[in-house]
Amino acid sequence: RIMRPDDANIAGNVHGGTILKMIEEAGAIISTRHCNSQSGEPCVAALARVERTDFLSPMCIGEVANVSAEITYTSRHSVEVQVNVMSENILTGAKKVTNKATLWYVPLSLKNVNKVVEVPPIQYARKEQEDEGKKRYEEQKLDRLETKQRNGDVILPVINPEPHTVGYSQSSLIHLVGPSDCTLLGFVHGGVTMKLMDEVAGIVAARHCKTNIVTASVDAINFHEKIKKGCVITVSGRMTFTSNKSMEIEVFVDADPFVDEPRERYRAVSAFFTYVSLSKEGKPLPVPQLLTETEDEKRRFEEGKGRYLQTKAKRQAQMQQSAQQ
Amino acid sequence: RIMRPDDANIAGNVHGGTILKMIEEAGAIISTRHCNSQSGEPCVAALARVERTDFLSPMCIGEVANVSAEITYTSRHSVEVQVNVMSENILTGAKKVTNKATLWYVPLSLKNVNKVVEVPPIQYARKEQEDEGKKRYEEQKLDRLETKQRNGDVILPVINPEPHTVGYSQSSLIHLVGPSDCTLLGFVHGGVTMKLMDEVAGIVAARHCKTNIVTASVDAINFHEKIKKGCVITVSGRMTFTSNKSMEIEVFVDADPFVDEPRERYRAVSAFFTYVSLSKEGKPLPVPQLLTETEDEKRRFEEGKGRYLQTKAKRQAQMQQSAQQ
Amino acid sequence: RIMRPDDANIAGNVHGGTILKMIEEAGAIISTRHCNSQSGEPCVAALARVERTDFLSPMCIGEVANVSAEITYTSRHSVEVQVNVMSENILTGAKKVTNKATLWYVPLSLKNVNKVVEVPPIQYARKEQEDEGKKRYEEQKLDRLETKQRNGDVILPVINPEPHTVGYSQSSLIHLVGPSDCTLLGFVHGGVTMKLMDEVAGIVAARHCKTNIVTASVDAINFHEKIKKGCVITVSGRMTFTSNKSMEIEVFVDADPFVDEPRERYRAVSAFFTYVSLSKEGKPLPVPQLLTETEDEKRRFEEGKGRYLQTKAKRQAQMQQSAQQ
Repeated sequence: RIMRPDDANIAGNVHGGTILKMIEEAGAIISTRHCNSQSGEPCVAALARVERTDFLSPMCIGEVANVSAEITYTSRHSVEVQVNVMSENILTGAKKVTNKATLWYVPLSLKNVNKVVEVPPIQYARKEQEDEGKKRYEEQKLDRLETKQRNGDVILPVINPEPHTVGYSQSSLIHLVGPSDCTLLGFVHGGVTMKLMDEVAGIVAARHCKTNIVTASVDAINFHEKIKKGCVITVSGRMTFTSNKSMEIEVFVDADPFVDEPRERYRAVSAFFTYVSLSKEGKPLPVPQLLTETEDEKRRFEEGKGRYLQTKAKRQAQMQQSAQQ
Repeated sequence: RIMRPDDANIAGNVHGGTILKMIEEAGAIISTRHCNSQSGEPCVAALARVERTDFLSPMCIGEVANVSAEITYTSRHSVEVQVNVMSENILTGAKKVTNKATLWYVPLSLKNVNKVVEVPPIQYARKEQEDEGKKRYEEQKLDRLETKQRNGDVILPVINPEPHTVGYSQSSLIHLVGPSDCTLLGFVHGGVTMKLMDEVAGIVAARHCKTNIVTASVDAINFHEKIKKGCVITVSGRMTFTSNKSMEIEVFVDADPFVDEPRERYRAVSAFFTYVSLSKEGKPLPVPQLLTETEDEKRRFEEGKGRYLQTKAKRQAQMQQSAQQ
Repeated sequence: RIMRPDDANIAGNVHGGTILKMIEEAGAIISTRHCNSQSGEPCVAALARVERTDFLSPMCIGEVANVSAEITYTSRHSVEVQVNVMSENILTGAKKVTNKATLWYVPLSLKNVNKVVEVPPIQYARKEQEDEGKKRYEEQKLDRLETKQRNGDVILPVINPEPHTVGYSQSSLIHLVGPSDCTLLGFVHGGVTMKLMDEVAGIVAARHCKTNIVTASVDAINFHEKIKKGCVITVSGRMTFTSNKSMEIEVFVDADPFVDEPRERYRAVSAFFTYVSLSKEGKPLPVPQLLTETEDEKRRFEEGKGRYLQTKAKRQAQMQQSAQQ
């Protein structure tokens, strides 16, 4: 579809969240279609996890987004989908790869929303594809279990914060989950949640550096809990780490099933977003260093630094590999 | 309502699809109101057909669209509505007629969606009005039957197409039908479908000529089949004909009731859109000629030429007629 | 236009904010048109104030909103507009008055956004209409000056609040102002701001009483400061008063011109919203009493009580008056 002014920031760069939402919609359609392809219980595919995603080049207003999706692995109860996004300038014909994302879906029965139905197996062209898929499946399963633990934190407000401290840029928004946010089962689309998360992360980043900013990457996101229509969700973000030219923002999503439900508020999703600041010519700008005050903030900064260095090392290894080929 | 940036292309011209959507909403309101005006079975008017519509002058961001609708004929089971759209520049006060459209609605029972209820007859000021209406009614009925046949075609993707061939500009999008796309009966508003069709046709036209383009006209559209909430619809467009200054694009809508329905994908709607290319000053530009390769493409080009010449002849006849009056 | 699922809460009642937004759009169109009706400087009408508005009966999904607007008074630099909203059930034909609102607009020059242009005078049918309009004009002018003072408060967050305290239900959201939120001058439509205010107030009310709630009235809202495209706005709400069957919520809007602007965050708007809680049959339910803890909260509760009793007295006086006529 064509990118509109509302999909973009003031400088005309399309929000990462808009792209994440399109990716998730494509993934949900292909995996729902696959899971209903054999006569069995009708079901809807629910997003369980998005692997780490890099935004390779910015997309602009007026460009057309081409989204293509392919099922790359199926386990008994889950589907792996690979989604590619290309931006196309229809005036010049220029095309660029914007994103490559890997998503995991779980099919839930239409009749009983708590029942996961079986996934029809796909055919692999080569045996290795199945083996590699299985390896990816095991890895993400492990990672999902791990993150289920570390979700307890809350973002506490700060009165009269100093510039460039964590408290200075932290932000949160509330959103009442409406009908068009939801799937046929009455639960929020994963893509809607990711769009709101990107919105908050972007506001945190812009408050910190007061310039035009764009999403550079999102780390793996796990969707442990469904969010129902009528909930109020609180999406909060705080900066955890800055390098010379990037900012890492942690984002939490809390759901509050406040009408006609006895349940307490719960943590539904959390993730790290990385942003860069861009000049008017689209070049990366230096970022003011984050001032950490408390012990927790210092610890989170070090953890963020660890993730940053790890990603950097991985990228360099990949570049060397491709240079040798 | 006031036209916003998201309603328009980069040059500020409001998308034909936005206007078609407003027209359809006005038509649906007036015909649903009429069909429920006598105590009888509660019903909702569903769009059955839109007659050929010309976009007489472009509408711009910031202008106000004034939409007025009138019922001009009723048969036992259908309502003909005439909708006029005026654009008003509220700064200068200038008003222009943008569109005159004729739509046919069929009232479906709220209790049983497959039952067409009876339409209360309207009063005509003169007997001729009823006779002319009846003639229009018979004509469109015939035309609807005809188009029901010719809907079998599919658009196959082309690898590495040459510029200005059919494969070079052909495009498609998928859309998951959500609650806010639907009527009280849970079926897609005709206006939502037409907006998506115009979006695809616009992308095809822009890909072909790489300039700012606007909708010039839409030929008669027949809505043979309803599309239900939860369906995925695929909207595909390909260029069929170019004259010196216009492009004709054929658009198909296919619906895929992929959850909870044993039904196969089916062709829901098809239509021809005509686009022109505009310079920055708003003047029509020459259009690159469409290169046809296959026999089918050559045949469709000739058919398009036939429609083009027929329309041109009709318009000249009308102009002569009004010159003589 | 037809009310959609997205315009309403889970019980199907249209959000007060959706109605306020439609009212403001109608007012902006009629007053911009009027102010440009005589050859002079092109201008856009900006909302300066909305008088106290009661929501007389709820509107539901599927109903059609009929909005009509009329200019009732003009001063040298401002326009008073009366807007009426009727809900129409197009299946039964039943019509009800939903709202009567009075809005004040100020025309700003298109060339110089800080310049207020002169308003062409309207003709009055009777001399008393002009005199009464002048009286209303003087009254609102006074009231606007007053509220300009009392805007200094901020809403401080509370950790682990008890149910039914002020801290328990207070809420805030942030929103990045995009192009489709704005007028031709690049400032937020007053209606967009009011919709967000109603959204926050509704969440505060629902958090307090955990039932289905609807907007009953909004007191006079003054728009002292314009909000520019690209700002982040923070909309915060806290409960100030509860009667047996109603809740009063104070809402603040703060604007943060954070990119490319040297300016500090400022208070742009504030207002009081009154909500009632409805049973499934649409009957008003008792509301849990607000627990006040601090001196400020107790003071605000008493002030809210004063406004409540004053409004009640006024309504009774009006009812007696109409009984006598």
